[in-house]
Amino acid sequence: MIFVGERINTGFKDIKQAVMDKDPKPLQRWARDQTAAGATYLDVNLGAVSTKPEDMCWMIETVQAAVDTPISIDSNKPAILAEAIKVCNKPPLINSSTASQEKMDVFLPIVVECGGSVIGLSMDDAGAPKSADMRVEKAGMFLATAMEHGITPDRVFLDPIVMPLKFMQDQAKEILEAARQFLLFSDPAPHIICGLSNVSNGTTHKKLINRIFLTMLINNGADAAICDVMDTDLVHAALTAELVMNREIYADSYI
Amino acid sequence: MIFVGERINTGFKDIKQAVMDKDPKPLQRWARDQTAAGATYLDVNLGAVSTKPEDMCWMIETVQAAVDTPISIDSNKPAILAEAIKVCNKPPLINSSTASQEKMDVFLPIVVECGGSVIGLSMDDAGAPKSADMRVEKAGMFLATAMEHGITPDRVFLDPIVMPLKFMQDQAKEILEAARQFLLFSDPAPHIICGLSNVSNGTTHKKLINRIFLTMLINNGADAAICDVMDTDLVHAALTAELVMNREIYADSYI
Repeated sequence: MIFVGERINTGFKDIKQAVMDKDPKPLQRWARDQTAAGATYLDVNLGAVSTKPEDMCWMIETVQAAVDTPISIDSNKPAILAEAIKVCNKPPLINSSTASQEKMDVFLPIVVECGGSVIGLSMDDAGAPKSADMRVEKAGMFLATAMEHGITPDRVFLDPIVMPLKFMQDQAKEILEAARQFLLFSDPAPHIICGLSNVSNGTTHKKLINRIFLTMLINNGADAAICDVMDTDLVHAALTAELVMNREIYADSYI
Repeated sequence: MIFVGERINTGFKDIKQAVMDKDPKPLQRWARDQTAAGATYLDVNLGAVSTKPEDMCWMIETVQAAVDTPISIDSNKPAILAEAIKVCNKPPLINSSTASQEKMDVFLPIVVECGGSVIGLSMDDAGAPKSADMRVEKAGMFLATAMEHGITPDRVFLDPIVMPLKFMQDQAKEILEAARQFLLFSDPAPHIICGLSNVSNGTTHKKLINRIFLTMLINNGADAAICDVMDTDLVHAALTAELVMNREIYADSYI
């Protein structure tokens, strides 16, 4: 399972304050804690705090001074991405591009330049997808275009776009069905990822819903999630689901 | 979700002793507790304690004196079943028949006679199935034969035969794939059930493995399980999975 730790994001107050104060400690504590909890990548998101590439570069360099976990650069701004990739010690995960031609024309060359991986959202400028079919069409477009740029499927993470269960309950099945079809695009298949926390938005049982939805998504082929890696129950659920899928060999001590 | 409470079984010491002593209290306590926990059926299993139909009838009548939850008659002995159906106050679930012609010839008329439902195992005299294809073949045979007897798919519970993850890890994916194909047999589809606890046999994290496997099986179409309904985390996992499948309408108070 590929876990992308979601916590180094200025959407959280402590990170926002730390970026404004250029205080490395909160970022480095979350970097260490998430790495210890099993994060494969650390997502780094500057959010609306600044539009300056050097602020994103400061965040990445601060994290890298504490751990050697690869970075997921969470930005939709080409100017920021272009600078951020230069300071990454390891090939980063670019988070993310839509499947619109305009976006792919800009983002995919950046992925090629840094030798990293990329999250492709199954949507374009027309907005959020409503059906499994629409997701499959957009994700297929993204994967094909990435491959034309020489980016192999093992460097592509397709995202079926998770919607809140509470407000768009009928979308959950569409998302699961889309993931199952993404698996068929290529052999070996691309990675399948989701921004998990959105599924439980506004609900009273967030952690339960997160781990049940991730379990079902793994059953349909997902091998990655941007999520709260500090949620031990979530991590255990995902590891168990991978055992059931026969992706890891059973041992009594598997968690 | 259809939960079949597994606890009134002489495989458990307290039930074995109670049946030998004809002490109604342990059976009635488990009948009430499992019903309160959400059991749709109460499985009643005489096991090897006795071969007398009247002992099974005593168990059923004892349970029915405490609760009005329908009974799942857990026996592969036609002589016991033939008497047991006569004392059931509500149409029972017959647990179970294999797909061998000889077994179906005996069991299906009993199901017709009592107007109940039946669990059809996806195996025949050749023994436990090794692949999804084999399970689909046997389950399809069972459903077709049941329908020839006038038993509609809503009274048929197909069981893909759950194997222990620890000892037969590659079987889990086969079981899940079989369930997904069972869904396609008819419209409306038959029920899909499993004897859940077997999946975690011999493991160190039984409850975790039970609930993750059940979640994945629900994702593939299962709507029933013979399980420990007193395991609150398991019940919550199943109810959440049903929300994701859009089978129940979301409410903040859904568990």
